[in-house]
Amino acid sequence: MNLIGHSASVGSSPLVLGDRGHREAAPELRARLEHRLAALVPAEDAPPETLHRAMRYSLLAGGKRIRPLLTVQVATGFGASEAAALDPACAVEMLHTASLILDDLPCMDDAALRRGLPANHRVFGEDTAILAATALLNRSFEVVAESEGLDAAVRLELVRLLARAVGSDGIIAGQFCDLRSDWQSGGDLSGLTRMYVQKTGALFVAAVEAGARVAGVEERWVGAVREYAINLGLAFQLLDDLLDTFSTVEVIGKDTAQDHGKTTLASRLGPDAARLEVCRYVRSAASALDPLGSSATPLIDLARSYTEPTMERVLYL
Amino acid sequence: MNLIGHSASVGSSPLVLGDRGHREAAPELRARLEHRLAALVPAEDAPPETLHRAMRYSLLAGGKRIRPLLTVQVATGFGASEAAALDPACAVEMLHTASLILDDLPCMDDAALRRGLPANHRVFGEDTAILAATALLNRSFEVVAESEGLDAAVRLELVRLLARAVGSDGIIAGQFCDLRSDWQSGGDLSGLTRMYVQKTGALFVAAVEAGARVAGVEERWVGAVREYAINLGLAFQLLDDLLDTFSTVEVIGKDTAQDHGKTTLASRLGPDAARLEVCRYVRSAASALDPLGSSATPLIDLARSYTEPTMERVLYL
Repeated sequence: MNLIGHSASVGSSPLVLGDRGHREAAPELRARLEHRLAALVPAEDAPPETLHRAMRYSLLAGGKRIRPLLTVQVATGFGASEAAALDPACAVEMLHTASLILDDLPCMDDAALRRGLPANHRVFGEDTAILAATALLNRSFEVVAESEGLDAAVRLELVRLLARAVGSDGIIAGQFCDLRSDWQSGGDLSGLTRMYVQKTGALFVAAVEAGARVAGVEERWVGAVREYAINLGLAFQLLDDLLDTFSTVEVIGKDTAQDHGKTTLASRLGPDAARLEVCRYVRSAASALDPLGSSATPLIDLARSYTEPTMERVLYL
Repeated sequence: MNLIGHSASVGSSPLVLGDRGHREAAPELRARLEHRLAALVPAEDAPPETLHRAMRYSLLAGGKRIRPLLTVQVATGFGASEAAALDPACAVEMLHTASLILDDLPCMDDAALRRGLPANHRVFGEDTAILAATALLNRSFEVVAESEGLDAAVRLELVRLLARAVGSDGIIAGQFCDLRSDWQSGGDLSGLTRMYVQKTGALFVAAVEAGARVAGVEERWVGAVREYAINLGLAFQLLDDLLDTFSTVEVIGKDTAQDHGKTTLASRLGPDAARLEVCRYVRSAASALDPLGSSATPLIDLARSYTEPTMERVLYL
């Protein structure tokens, strides 16, 4: 695929939910990402062994890997080599994993299960879980700084954009506001939506922007993929809410009813309107790629390959 | 001072403990550092306000600031401008502050007091304390990436060396081994010393190396200041042990007897031998700068201006 090469093609709205099979997106690329992730963190037998086991336990526990897939697919779609995009993509996944370990802590969401396994702190203790998360966050910046095959200026831009996504206007702000329900001050849905954009959207945006920077594309293309990512992030967070209320731990491999008693976008909208809203976000994500024409199909497929099966896991219990 | 300019001068051993007054080192530079630190983190009234208050609470609570002073004094000593070194120096202090907030958590050292004030989690709660520490760690990389007046290659090298200092072979490894007493496997003092080098020495080394990289000096000068820093870090950690056992909370502004029941280098050596060992480390730090001649005096003064008054706070209760 080459996103720029086909940019003049017809700007049809290529996303119609439900007309394709739910295959896993890019399984071979996923396998290469898993392999690279495993190589980028210290081995389990390197001291301190338990700390490294804790880092690897959460990082290599599977997961959807949608964020690093976004980075690589945007980069290669814009003509960069997969090799150049692989390490920045892994850095994005390290940041995501670090945020999950911290979110699950007893003083935050107090979750028991993540990615189908006991949460990190349940296996290694709170202290080690916090240190493992911090080490993954830290390592992600080191990986970006050491990414071979990228100009120094590009690597620096990646450090900057990832730090912005994590920071106190990004994931960290989102998690803080979620814990403290600070978004409620708005009184309407805008506060909630803003919290979702920070908590989930920021890293989706950083993932695609990282891909675009690796490929060195013009600013207008960056804008298109950012718009795609922000909508995809909102769809994901809303699905996450829905699953929390309308699914089971066996189906999704992590705790449910974590949001019990909290106002979420799903609880405000109700399940039917929330499902429609997910579809609307996915369509908006696809429309944002219209300027890229049919060459954006892999990114649209990627969005659908995650959101459609997830929609099916929303159960009316 | 110009460290290189006087490098041919006589390599005398300029450190004789006790022959100078205990004035605060570089008070004006310290004030400029405080000012810049305050400018580099979001204001208290920027949302989420409580998160930003928590970040500023610990970052701007005073402290010795020896690490950022080291960065600036090494950089300017090698001929760089203070302006170029100030932001990397602040990044070093942000990393240090983040590590203090995490070390104080109930699941780690469970400290009540830090820098004369209630520990971050005692004021803001554990969840906010963890997010504030993570935000400071993250912000430090952003600050380095955005440091004006430095080449992209230098900024990248700073990201790399700071990440190495923090990582699972640096501060994080040191804190992990301290918590789990993993160093005891050695059976002798070498395991303890290695843990100290990771926990405290790593960031001292990164602080001086950052200064040297800002100035763009040759590798052999980097080696000299690294050796200085590793010895100074050991002196600091040993003093910290001594104060924990032989001082009071009123004198040092943080909890004492935190190490009760743990084996520390101070408890293994006993107070008298430990004090002598501190002096030996400070002398080794000074000797490492011999190749730089008398121009290294500011760095030696800096070491003495912290270790000598601290020695006096070691009380025999």
